[in-house]
Parts: sequence; structure tokens; C-alpha cells
Amino acid sequence: MTTRTGRHFLNIPGPSPVPDRVMRAMDRQVIDHRGPEFARLGHEVLEGCKAVFQTKAPVIIYPSSGTGAWEATIVNTLSPGDRVLMFETGHFATLWQKMAARWGIEVDFVPGDWRRGADPAIVEAKLAEDREHAIKAVMVVHNETSTGATSRIAEVRRAIDQAGHPALLLVDSISGLGSADLQHDAWGIDVTVSCSQKGLMLPPGLGFTAISEKARAAAKANTLARSYWDWEEMLKPNTDGFFPYTPATNLLFGLREAIAMLLEEGLPQVFARHQRLAAATRAAVQGWGLEVLCEEPSEFSPVLTAVLMPDGHDADAFRKLVLDRFDMSLGTGLAKLAGRVFRIGHLGECNELSLMGALSGVEMGLDAAGIPHQRGGVLAAMTSLRTGRDD
Amino acid sequence: MTTRTGRHFLNIPGPSPVPDRVMRAMDRQVIDHRGPEFARLGHEVLEGCKAVFQTKAPVIIYPSSGTGAWEATIVNTLSPGDRVLMFETGHFATLWQKMAARWGIEVDFVPGDWRRGADPAIVEAKLAEDREHAIKAVMVVHNETSTGATSRIAEVRRAIDQAGHPALLLVDSISGLGSADLQHDAWGIDVTVSCSQKGLMLPPGLGFTAISEKARAAAKANTLARSYWDWEEMLKPNTDGFFPYTPATNLLFGLREAIAMLLEEGLPQVFARHQRLAAATRAAVQGWGLEVLCEEPSEFSPVLTAVLMPDGHDADAFRKLVLDRFDMSLGTGLAKLAGRVFRIGHLGECNELSLMGALSGVEMGLDAAGIPHQRGGVLAAMTSLRTGRDD
Amino acid sequence: MTTRTGRHFLNIPGPSPVPDRVMRAMDRQVIDHRGPEFARLGHEVLEGCKAVFQTKAPVIIYPSSGTGAWEATIVNTLSPGDRVLMFETGHFATLWQKMAARWGIEVDFVPGDWRRGADPAIVEAKLAEDREHAIKAVMVVHNETSTGATSRIAEVRRAIDQAGHPALLLVDSISGLGSADLQHDAWGIDVTVSCSQKGLMLPPGLGFTAISEKARAAAKANTLARSYWDWEEMLKPNTDGFFPYTPATNLLFGLREAIAMLLEEGLPQVFARHQRLAAATRAAVQGWGLEVLCEEPSEFSPVLTAVLMPDGHDADAFRKLVLDRFDMSLGTGLAKLAGRVFRIGHLGECNELSLMGALSGVEMGLDAAGIPHQRGGVLAAMTSLRTGRDD
Amino acid sequence: MTTRTGRHFLNIPGPSPVPDRVMRAMDRQVIDHRGPEFARLGHEVLEGCKAVFQTKAPVIIYPSSGTGAWEATIVNTLSPGDRVLMFETGHFATLWQKMAARWGIEVDFVPGDWRRGADPAIVEAKLAEDREHAIKAVMVVHNETSTGATSRIAEVRRAIDQAGHPALLLVDSISGLGSADLQHDAWGIDVTVSCSQKGLMLPPGLGFTAISEKARAAAKANTLARSYWDWEEMLKPNTDGFFPYTPATNLLFGLREAIAMLLEEGLPQVFARHQRLAAATRAAVQGWGLEVLCEEPSEFSPVLTAVLMPDGHDADAFRKLVLDRFDMSLGTGLAKLAGRVFRIGHLGECNELSLMGALSGVEMGLDAAGIPHQRGGVLAAMTSLRTGRDD
Repeated sequence: MTTRTGRHFLNIPGPSPVPDRVMRAMDRQVIDHRGPEFARLGHEVLEGCKAVFQTKAPVIIYPSSGTGAWEATIVNTLSPGDRVLMFETGHFATLWQKMAARWGIEVDFVPGDWRRGADPAIVEAKLAEDREHAIKAVMVVHNETSTGATSRIAEVRRAIDQAGHPALLLVDSISGLGSADLQHDAWGIDVTVSCSQKGLMLPPGLGFTAISEKARAAAKANTLARSYWDWEEMLKPNTDGFFPYTPATNLLFGLREAIAMLLEEGLPQVFARHQRLAAATRAAVQGWGLEVLCEEPSEFSPVLTAVLMPDGHDADAFRKLVLDRFDMSLGTGLAKLAGRVFRIGHLGECNELSLMGALSGVEMGLDAAGIPHQRGGVLAAMTSLRTGRDD
Repeated sequence: MTTRTGRHFLNIPGPSPVPDRVMRAMDRQVIDHRGPEFARLGHEVLEGCKAVFQTKAPVIIYPSSGTGAWEATIVNTLSPGDRVLMFETGHFATLWQKMAARWGIEVDFVPGDWRRGADPAIVEAKLAEDREHAIKAVMVVHNETSTGATSRIAEVRRAIDQAGHPALLLVDSISGLGSADLQHDAWGIDVTVSCSQKGLMLPPGLGFTAISEKARAAAKANTLARSYWDWEEMLKPNTDGFFPYTPATNLLFGLREAIAMLLEEGLPQVFARHQRLAAATRAAVQGWGLEVLCEEPSEFSPVLTAVLMPDGHDADAFRKLVLDRFDMSLGTGLAKLAGRVFRIGHLGECNELSLMGALSGVEMGLDAAGIPHQRGGVLAAMTSLRTGRDD
Repeated sequence: MTTRTGRHFLNIPGPSPVPDRVMRAMDRQVIDHRGPEFARLGHEVLEGCKAVFQTKAPVIIYPSSGTGAWEATIVNTLSPGDRVLMFETGHFATLWQKMAARWGIEVDFVPGDWRRGADPAIVEAKLAEDREHAIKAVMVVHNETSTGATSRIAEVRRAIDQAGHPALLLVDSISGLGSADLQHDAWGIDVTVSCSQKGLMLPPGLGFTAISEKARAAAKANTLARSYWDWEEMLKPNTDGFFPYTPATNLLFGLREAIAMLLEEGLPQVFARHQRLAAATRAAVQGWGLEVLCEEPSEFSPVLTAVLMPDGHDADAFRKLVLDRFDMSLGTGLAKLAGRVFRIGHLGECNELSLMGALSGVEMGLDAAGIPHQRGGVLAAMTSLRTGRDD
Repeated sequence: MTTRTGRHFLNIPGPSPVPDRVMRAMDRQVIDHRGPEFARLGHEVLEGCKAVFQTKAPVIIYPSSGTGAWEATIVNTLSPGDRVLMFETGHFATLWQKMAARWGIEVDFVPGDWRRGADPAIVEAKLAEDREHAIKAVMVVHNETSTGATSRIAEVRRAIDQAGHPALLLVDSISGLGSADLQHDAWGIDVTVSCSQKGLMLPPGLGFTAISEKARAAAKANTLARSYWDWEEMLKPNTDGFFPYTPATNLLFGLREAIAMLLEEGLPQVFARHQRLAAATRAAVQGWGLEVLCEEPSEFSPVLTAVLMPDGHDADAFRKLVLDRFDMSLGTGLAKLAGRVFRIGHLGECNELSLMGALSGVEMGLDAAGIPHQRGGVLAAMTSLRTGRDD
């Protein structure tokens, strides 16, 4: 029997649930995108984004998906034939690498087993080897949405510096921003890529690139043809709060409200909350006797947890049962992880009780699906939450 | 530390959470309450209510709270000096009795310990004694919101019939309708009182009375002054889908949608769902080693569960902790139960995972408050849910 | 052909269009009506209402229609057999008189031709005659929604004082409040009755009574049975921001926002805006060569304008044509005015351009219906608006 | 004095007002973009778009502005060095030409005076001259948003055929689609470009390209690097109702509703309504003694009307006065038309009365600004509306 009463549990690692406050902020008439009211909105969201990216540098807002912001990063900073260093940390790193390849970039793609982040030691070694500075950029995924493993961006930065290498540091924080700490300026990132539908708690439809002065200079020197994604075209009207083409106004209304919510809670509190919920989730996985995909504790994602299925059990059959029976969406295993993992999102508009509801659904689902497990996951999560706070 | 991110858990026994579908149905411009579009709306909700009350009799819809519908029942059917039989099943039965007394009704108020429903045997005995048929009505609360105990209305009806007594049967199903089975016609109820903000999943603001032919005849014969609540004044324009004074149009938009949702799910399925969630909640209470207030298993409420606090522990301090720390509202103990019980609502827009979230909050709250309990409640609830369905 | 694209023009004299801001304020989850967040809401709306009623006295908020607030006024202050003075200023005055009669009140109902307000001279004469002070109250409709004529309440007050009579002054400002100046304290009103769906720009579902100390004392001394409407029962929990029974929470969310909007614009500005729109509407009527129902310029309503149809033409056929063809709702002629007048609402969420749209619809409708008229109404309204402002 | 009560009149030529139905459809939780509910949504909007574009060919939906869809058209079908034929019909034609130039396309840009559409005779002549078929595409703007002049696309198609030339026909119908007749298949268009915020009545954030088999074949043969905009990448998952990257789900909810509204009204009725409103607007302009920018009656836009200011009067000062005083946004003059024209949008969620409100605002604004004009515009518009319908 299908239960369809009550709220759907949207526990995929994005799009994440949209808060009621954000919904209400978006639920209003569009305004003239060339008028004075829009200019105020534009200034507010452009400034507000800086706070969220922890930067004084400009943040570009595109009407696009996060994939569009990937492309913007490539076409502004790189040209066909350029060499870049990337890490096979998972499905999205692989997709970004494929996109780079489509643009004629030569990618040195360091292989990985999809169970941890990029290795700063390899960054340093590879760059130290590159004495001609042929490598134009190091491109790293901050929070791999397909695996639940993060890359330690600050350490990657140090590795680049250690090697005395001028490569740009381009970071995909599509699912990290607003949930996991991401310090564009302090960590010396050149481009941070993100989107609206993860930690920013909006519906999909906005892509972002925060750009350092060095990245901007690289873009100015780059002759690759581009138009929609061109940073300079954006930055000119942005000065007055406007955009070079019609922006996605209602999503900007929502963005203004989402930024306000994040800053009211406080970024450190937001990050701590995600860490607490993630720790409880991993405690649940351990309680069930199952395995978290990410192998490196210092790289556990605060955003999502990918769980390995016991051999002989299909993750997608399990997800379907959970959807049909408990009205909860879990994330599917992507590419080579298909059928082997399911992913639990615990990001954005999420609190302890909604997480416990979700974990109860997983535990009851494991039982209903006849998947070998112990019943102690939910209990372990509650224990974790109890000890994970000091109030 | 207060967690205020994510959805508030509204687990009081009403107002209950409003489904998104109902919210969207109400979020629209008001219309001319004398125009043709309104007439269609009026017909739809007046007919739809009949399905929900399981009756062919008219249902009156007031812009009022449920208390208003109590008053409507009294002033239409009774006069000062009339005798009625009522049962002290809890706080709301007591309030209704007080209201009747204010209207000059002489109430034979059968005392009770607030841990069970009205006793059909007493109904039969009291009516059998009343050979002159001085008792004009038996007034019973179907689902006592203050205690979580129901009264067995069909048995009360049989008791009246057994006594061969012409008394009207007036039933408060304010928190029962739409959650607990309530058959206005089949159970021979003369007036069923209800409201919008419980099983109908709407915001508060509508009161209802379903009225039998016998009740209507009694009202016509009743000379007590009344105006706003007068049934005949309502029934005349209702024939054309209109109302004698401006109706609460946007709540009627929501009512139309809520009725559609209940009928799409199917009333038997709705009632079974409530029973399943209630059983899981009681299993949790037992798992914690705590006591359910309602003592009679055949009278357990499918709508809410009142839980007795261990001696020496204040329920309201516990509720405050749960609100501050887990952003969940639980129902307070009312009148003589103040401080001694808390109430868990599991009605309306509620499903298995949202219930598990709520029960986890209770369990973590008991722990945080240092209230003696066992940690097995959440686990027991999951076990109950597993066995409580046959799909 | 029916045009149904674009916004419906709701130009009845209430319910009036709900502003988007108010819609968004209401479009949110209900909250625990016994919790701390509700207490804040309660305090805000109870205080805010005082500003709108221009009083320091308490304002009672009922989940009811305005008709309920009429009844509340009667049952709190009067008893069967009491004498009151009322004026037949139109349909609603007549309905209120009938309601009073149902409650056993003896009404001295001064006849009128429905083309002007209550006559202060008659008030003074009648009260001066009543040397035993048998008349308990003077009951006047501030803004007759059926006719578009106001009564001069301040002058009525002076007339009572002139006669040295202790009668209460009970005022229906159901469609006046928030649109026409109404000074509960300064004008010495004892009870002001109102509702949500007119100048307060909310959907229907709330009734109000502002009560003077004298009215409250009269109520305390009044032994008439009452419960739902009882002021004292309301005032007790109101002190803490709560209500004696479940309030219509989402309408209160809207009320908070509507009050904020009125105070942001400023009550004098709100009243001036209504006067300006009303003057433009009357200019249009004159421009068409038609007749405004209200005969007394000092009593023209700022809220609505009732227009007399030329002989031999049915107002409802005209209204139907306008609805079908231009998607605009105009107010019908009520009771003895049925078919003879149509009413144009220009209240609440209304501005110069939306009024011009409505007046254009009337002018095109008159043409389409073949009703004798001149085509200068819209032009005259624009001229009026031009001269009616000094910016 | 600024009037800010009542609804803002958004009479720019897009973004156009969003209907309440569409707002409500979007105001809901996002869903899993890889789940079964999304697949149904995807199929519905992809099929529904075909009806609106009047095609059996696939329509690609991007999370982007219309500018993005321009770029998609160029990068899929053209390569650096390709020659195309374009017409300087206004600001947007010029912008598209500049974009093409940025992509290395050699544009034969036929000059124009911004007062009419593309000349089919020139198309035929130019193509007839091009015996080597060096011209790869004819790129035409269907409805020039900056001027209110349309190009006769069917005639352009015939001109291409007359010349026996294989050039692709690429059409920008960004502000035409859903308001002006546009027959992708019957008119032999190869790519039709559009967006969400004009005739589709949605907020901005979606770009569209409808593509013929010939265009698709050209794209497959085209080796220009592209990724985000690549048609084949889109078409693969579209088969199952999915997208290659996260789509703008909530805008798709709105799109489903907007398509339903257009088809319920009927496309011919939608187009006729726009023609009727446009004719009334031009009648008003004539009534004021002002000049419509578009000189060619067969090319008058049904979507917007650009009005020339009398010499010595600044259009933007006038627009500011209208915004401040009447709360209406009019379109600004773009590029070389800056200060010389203002534009009145009459598209999408618009009806006769809302148009009359807008035209009244222009007439009162002309008066308030002291701009020489006659006062007969509003009257002429009403006369036009009277004769422009046959019901």
C-alpha cells in the first residue's frame, strides 16, 4: 500500500526542500528588471552572495543550472589545448572532466576509487613536476554529491603554493556551499562554482561563479569565444544592480530570503548543524551494520551520506520500495555506483526531527526489503544527536 | 541551543498541519459571494461535507470556531430549563456542559475520571429511569481532545434505542471527524458538531453541524431567540449554494480541496491510517515505560495520545524543552491534567515518517529533560508500523 | 464571447481584493494557538486593531462574519424588551433591525428612502422626548453598503449629548472601517462593529467589536444568556494574547499584515485615497448622465457608489453582461433596490488605474447593453483624478 | 504623492504579469528530478510545448534566459566563418547579430530604420545572388520587442524557397510566442527561439528552441565545441521525460499550467485577443495625436506598441512620472531609441479592463507631464474595443 498523505520526505542530496519562507518570498509578481525596485534587489543579492561565499570578490549569478556555471568557469578561464589537473573523485568530477574535454582542454585526470576526495599530496607532486607551468588550473570538486566525500580545499591550496605553481584553483562547490564551510577568499580559490538548489535551499535555476582577481585577469586574457557566460558582460551592469539579459527574478526574490535565513542562523551554526546531522546519519549506518561509502573520516560530507548495499541487494529496488511505501526520495547510485549505493541527503531545510523521520524510513525500508541489517540505526542516531550538541 | 531550521513539527491535536494542496487552494483571490462561481463552490462544499459526515442530511457551515458549532447545536435544539444528559469525559465535555448551563440547560453531568469515554450502560439506565422523557438530549464527545479517549457513539445510540427514549443524540466530533470513523446517518446521530482545523486539515475558522430530520424538527419547534446560528436561515440560501451572510470564502476553497483529498484517499483508508499511527504511538509510550492516559483499549483515540508524566515531573517544562530544542509543539495538559500529561497529535496531514520524527523528538526530549524512561519507544513504534500493515 | 484572461475585476463593495502582501502573510502553516509564537501574534493584532479603530479601548476579534459581530453587540449590551432607536438607511440597517427584533428588542425604526444616512436632528428629537431614558441605544450604520450613503457619526454623537441622553451609541462600520474615517474614541462611539473583508482587505472570516468602557459596563450588567459572543470571556485570555477558543489563526496572520499596510500608508492618506477614487467615480456617473443613489453630498460614501439605472433597464441584466463580457463583478441592488441599482466598489486594494479599468468596463458595458448614456464618464473620472490631488 | 496601494501595473513588453493560476502551480515543493513524478512532468511540458510552437518537432527547454536560447541556436547550427543574413529591425536583432559576431559568424546585416520588420524581397534577392550557397542561415526576429514591429516569417520562408536556397531559417520569437501567431512547422522554420517571461506568462528563467529535422541534422554535422547548449545531449534523456542536468523544476510546474491555460483559451482566441488589445492601444495613440513607431500596418505587433515622444520631451522622464504617480511600469526606449519612445506591453495575462487601466494611466501621465496631446486616447480605445469584437 502506498502512503501519500503528509509531506513527502525529499532526502536526495539536492534539490533540497525549499523553506516556507523562501517559497513565500518567491510567490509574488515579477517586476520590471530595468526599474529601481529591481536595482535594489540586484544589489542585495549580489552583496549577499559575497557573504555566503565568504569573499569580497564578485559573484556572478546566471539563470542556469550548476552545469552552466561549470561551463562558465571553463570558457572564461581556459582555452582549447590548455592543460588542467583534475581528480576522479566521483561521478560529478568525471562529468566536469568530460565537459572540459569537450572544450578541448587536456585533462590530467588522476584516477580514484570514488571513496575519497582529491589528494593534496598528488596536487603538490604533479605541480612540482610541471616546471614549465603548462598546467593552467587545478579543478577540484569540494563536495562530491555522488559519493559523500569532500576534498580538503584549503590543503589543496597549500599544495599549490608549496609547489610555487601559478595554476588557478577552480572549485565545484555545487553541493557544498551553504552546508559545508567554503571560504572563497581565505582558501585562495580562484573560481567557486555553485547553484541554487542545494545549501541555498532554492528551487533549481540559478548558477553561480565567485571569481578572484586572478581568475578575472585570466578571463580577460582569454580569447575563447563566449557570450552568455562572459564574466565581463555580467560585471558591467551588475555594478548598478542589473544584468545583461533578463534575470530569473523570482528566484532572486527567493535568493534574497535564503541568504537572510543563512545569515540569521549564522554560517558557523549552519555548518555545525550539518555536521551534527551527518554524524547522526553515519551513526545510523554503523548501527545498521552497513558501510558508508566514504572511507576517509576527515573527508566525510556534511551534506549527504552514501551507503553501500550488502552484496546481492539492489539499491534502486530498495529506493523504489522506500518511495512507494514511505513516500521518501533517496538519492540513486550514479554511473558505476548504480545499484550499489543509495544516498541520504541531510542538507539545507533539515532539522533533527526531519532527519530522524528519514532515518526511520530507511530502517523500516531495510526491514521491509529484507536487506540484512541490525535494527540499531535509529537508536544510534539519537545517541549521536544527544552527544553531538553542547547546549 | 535552539534549532529553528527545517519545518516545525506541529504535533498538537489540532490545529493540525495544513497540506500544501490545501494551502495552494486557499491562496487565491476572494470571489463575489453572490455570483455564479460562488454558487458552484457552495454546492460543492455542501455536498462534499455530506460525504465526509457520512450522511444524506444537510451540513451547516459557519464562519466560526468549533465552539460556535457547539453553541449552534444548543440554541437550535434546546431551551432554558431543558434537561440533558452529559458525561464528564474530559475538559471539552466539561466546557460544553458549562456552555449548556450558561444557556439555562439543566445538565445531568455523569462524573468521570477523564480516562475513558461515555458509558453506554449509564445512558441506557438514565434514560430508562426517565419515564416522562424529560431528558431532551444526550450530549456526548466523540473524541475527547483533552484525553485521547473516544466514546462509542454507535453503542450510545443503541442504548438510547434500548431505553425506547426519544432524546436527541448530540455528538461533538470536533477532533474526530475526518480522522476517526463517524457515521452520522448509520449511527443515528441527530447533530454532529465539528470544525475545520482537525481531521479536515484546514486552518481554524469553520464550524459545522450535520443535522438529522429529527433535530431540524426540534429546532423548528424551538422558540429560543437566535439569529447567527439559526439553521433555517442557513438552509434557505444553501439550496442555491449561497449563505445568509458573507461566508469565509477562502476557507471554503480549502475545504473543497481537503474533501477531495479525503475522498481520493478513501475514508476507510484515512481511518485505518490514523489507527496505524495511533497504535505506533501507543507502542512508543509503552516502550518508554510510560502510561497512556486512556485506560480502555476499545476507546483509544486514533487522533491523539495523551501521555502521563512520571510523578514529580512537569509536563509543561518538558513540552517547553521539546519546543525550544527540537522545534516541536506538543499538546498541553488541560485543566486538571495541567502539568500531568502531554498530548501527541497524530492526525490529518501526517504519515509514518513524520510520526517517527515526532516520536524521536519525544524520546530525545525525555532524555534531555532527565525524565525516567526506557529508550525503546521509537524502536517499538517502528515494530508496530511494520506489523500494522498488510501490504 | 467571454473574456477570462487576466485578472478578474472584483468591484463589489466587499469582499474587496486581497493584496498580494496579505495573501503571502496568510499562506503559511498554522501554529499552536497556545504557544509563545501565537501570544506574540495575538498581542500584535489586538494592539494593531486599536490603531485602526482609533481607540484605546479593547477590540474583540471573533472568528465570524460581520453579522456575528452585529449579534455580539446586541447580546452583550441589550436584553429582550429594551428599546433602541435605529434608522432605515438601507438594506443592512434593515437587517440589523430585524436581528434586534429577533432578540426581542423593541426597535423604533425611523423610516428612510435609502438615499441618505441617519438624521442627527431626529436622533436629538427622539432622545429629547424620551425623558425616562427608556431608549437604551442608538444603532446606526456608518457606511450603508447597500446604498453608498454614510451617516455622520460625530454629529449623531453630538445629538445624543445635546439631548443629555445616556443611550449607548452602537455603530456598524462593517464597510467603513479602514476606508472611511472612523474615530471610535473621539466620536464617542460605544461599540463599533466591523469585519475583515472590506477596508481591512482580508478574506471574510473575522468579525470585530471595539467597545467603550460604558459598553463594557452595560454588558457586565446584562444578564442575557450568551457564550460565544461574551466579551468578558474574550477579554480575559486576550490579556495574554490568547483567545478563549481556537482563533482563525491564518486570518490573524493576514490581519497583522493588513494593519501594517494601513499604518505604513497612514490612515489619513488611506481615507484621502478613498475620497479621491469615490469622487472620480461620481464624476464618471455624472459624465454618463446617470444618477448616484445617495442624494446628500455630505454623505457620499468613499467606499462604494450605487448607480440608479434608467427606467426600463434592469441592473442585474447589465451586471451579468459586464461579468460575462469584461470579467468584472459589480454589486447587485439589494432588497427593494434589486434591479434598480448597481454598485461600484472602490475600496481597499484599489488604485487609480484599477479604478479606471473598472469605470471603463462600466462605460463599455453601458454601451454594449444599449443603456442610454453619454460617453463622457471615463473622461470625467480622469479629469476628477487630475484635480483631486495636489502633488 | 506616490500611490502604492493596489496592484502594480506591469505594462512592459515582458516580463509580463504572471497569472494567479501559474503562481499557485509553482508555489510548491521541488521534487526529485530523477523520480517517476518528474518523468510525468517532463513528458507533459515537452509535449505541451509542441502544441504552443505548433510543431511536431522537438522543443528544447533550457534553464536560461532567452539570450541563452539565442546562443544555443548559434552554437548548434553554425561555426566560425559561416555566413548568415540578418536584418537590423531593432535593438534585439542588433544584439543577436553582435552575439553571432562574437562566435565568429560573418553577418550580412541588412540595415534598417527600426520602424518595420525584415523585408522578404531582400531575403529573396540576397539569396538569389548567393549562387554558391555560402549563406548558411537567415536569422530573423519575429516580434521586435524594442520597436513593436513584426517580421512576416511565412513570407520570409517563401522568399527563401523562391530563391531555391538551402539556408536555415532561424527565428527569434522571444516575445512573439504565445501572443502572436507562430507556426513552426507550417511556416518552415528551422529553429524557433523563445523564453518563459512573455507570452508564456511565467517568470523569467526558461529558454526554448524548437528545432526542425534539418536544423538537427546541421547540428549533428557541426563540430563547434559546445556542451550546456548541445541539442543531442538534451534530446537523449528528454525521451524519458528527463534532462541531462538539473532542470528548473518549479518553472516547469508553472509551464505546465501556462500551457494548459493557453490551450484552454485556444491559440486562435489568444492571438485574436492580443490583436484586439493592440488595435485598441494604437487607437489610443492616434487619439492622443501621437505616433506609433512601427510604420507598416501589416507589421504592427500584437504584443507591444512603441510610441514616439513629441520632440523635446524625454520618454524616460515621462516613464518615471508614470511609475511614481500611477504605479505603472512602461518599457523604456532601447539603444538609439532611448528617450525617444516608450513602450506599452499588452501581452499575456492581460484583458480589456486591465489594458484600459494602463491606457488611462498613459493619458493621465501625458497630462501630468505636460506633454502635448489630445485627450481622446482612452475614448478611442474603448471605441476600438467595441468594434473589434463580434460577439
